[in-house]
Amino acid sequence: MRNIKLTVAYDGTDFSGWQIQPGQPTIQGTLCDVLEKITLQRTLVQGAGRTDAGVHAMGQVANFTTTSELSAAEFQRAFNALLPPSIRIFAADEVSPDFHSRWNAVAKTYRYRIFRGRVVPPFLCRCVQQDYGTLNFDAMAEATKKFEGEHDFTTFSASTGSEEDDRERPTRRVIYRSEMIRISHDDVPGAPEEWVYRVRGKSFLRYMVRKIAGALVDVGRGKMRPDDIPHLLELRDRAKSGTTMPPPGLCLVKVEYPDPEMPPAT
Amino acid sequence: MRNIKLTVAYDGTDFSGWQIQPGQPTIQGTLCDVLEKITLQRTLVQGAGRTDAGVHAMGQVANFTTTSELSAAEFQRAFNALLPPSIRIFAADEVSPDFHSRWNAVAKTYRYRIFRGRVVPPFLCRCVQQDYGTLNFDAMAEATKKFEGEHDFTTFSASTGSEEDDRERPTRRVIYRSEMIRISHDDVPGAPEEWVYRVRGKSFLRYMVRKIAGALVDVGRGKMRPDDIPHLLELRDRAKSGTTMPPPGLCLVKVEYPDPEMPPAT
Repeated sequence: MRNIKLTVAYDGTDFSGWQIQPGQPTIQGTLCDVLEKITLQRTLVQGAGRTDAGVHAMGQVANFTTTSELSAAEFQRAFNALLPPSIRIFAADEVSPDFHSRWNAVAKTYRYRIFRGRVVPPFLCRCVQQDYGTLNFDAMAEATKKFEGEHDFTTFSASTGSEEDDRERPTRRVIYRSEMIRISHDDVPGAPEEWVYRVRGKSFLRYMVRKIAGALVDVGRGKMRPDDIPHLLELRDRAKSGTTMPPPGLCLVKVEYPDPEMPPAT
Repeated sequence: MRNIKLTVAYDGTDFSGWQIQPGQPTIQGTLCDVLEKITLQRTLVQGAGRTDAGVHAMGQVANFTTTSELSAAEFQRAFNALLPPSIRIFAADEVSPDFHSRWNAVAKTYRYRIFRGRVVPPFLCRCVQQDYGTLNFDAMAEATKKFEGEHDFTTFSASTGSEEDDRERPTRRVIYRSEMIRISHDDVPGAPEEWVYRVRGKSFLRYMVRKIAGALVDVGRGKMRPDDIPHLLELRDRAKSGTTMPPPGLCLVKVEYPDPEMPPAT
């Protein structure tokens, strides 16, 4: 069996998320359907992160096993020829048989885009969240740092839907880097700003980035202070997180794997 | 009668161009329909530039006259509430009764976006033209300068469809600035480049920017040299222009008017 790794970008607007669901347009389902057309065999395409409905990706990673003799480059061309323009394969590589896109991932980077102008330009309306109210950038930037390190992120997560699962699922997560960046859209009338929250971590709980981004906006509005974040983390209470930002501003930017030249981490 | 000036951005992908045509989705037609809903009167919205089907705008300018008592800000809000997200009003201003968006324009800026990566990211697929072949940037940049100044642009124009009109329509045009810029998409896997042709001139003939961009790509491919451009201009022969680039890469960026504080140009 050969193992093929795909780097996938998508506009999630018109999909019910990554995960395959009968009768719903999903990224995983669309990839499986196209793969079946290419190989004439039904094979599950496994993804590194199960993005929610309306969430986008620039560097999602997926893999599948196959007995096909097509080269990785031929797979890439065939996928891009058969997929809609809203899903693109940026790279296809043959990897070792034991590579798994989800279990081998060592880091993921997400970004959340907040558009600060009064009018959203047509080409940005599917991939940003508009907020042109008064927001204190410096307070938000200070608050981002409170999430760095290892914490129990229960407060900033969604329930799994089962009390038992919620109790058993580990909720400690490691954030390597958490930061706000401001960019200017000089080509848009009035040169409005966009504030981008970028976060790189080992792995994330469901809704975690959207709830962190919501807390940052609450800090920006003055509804809480950066120093309230450590307290909220300690509470480990889902009911206390405040705002959950909507899906369209969120994008899975990158998934990282161990360098194959390096000895495995222990 | 009051006169309202609009600054309009649109994603032209799903429209048959600016100009109103019965039974076709057009930008002008959509604006007129929405204006009729707001004022309950049918009024023609006049535009500065009649962009072709599939061409976009960031700073198109339009104006209409009205007896309505709505403020300019109220017009902007009403338009943005009723228009689809693919058309946005960035500004609405009350202007003097003799202002005409087309006849008073003193400069227009267009850009043509050439995406140099092998795979077009989902969010760019509607607004760039992909070309990842070998292209010589320096030769193209050198060629852009040959278009600056006043020239007869017959070679780089489309026929009006009537021989008589073609003979009578003035074909001399003034280009103030013509340049190639390269930008890097650091957020896209492989950090591909985009080459943007930007041109600012008094006014443009039909297809002129797309034919100039086509000539630049021909120079980039080595099919002709930058020094061939002045010769092509002198030929004044439509059949000699070469490649016409497709609509989706083109965007009307800005329309400029005389400073009302300055005495009128003579």
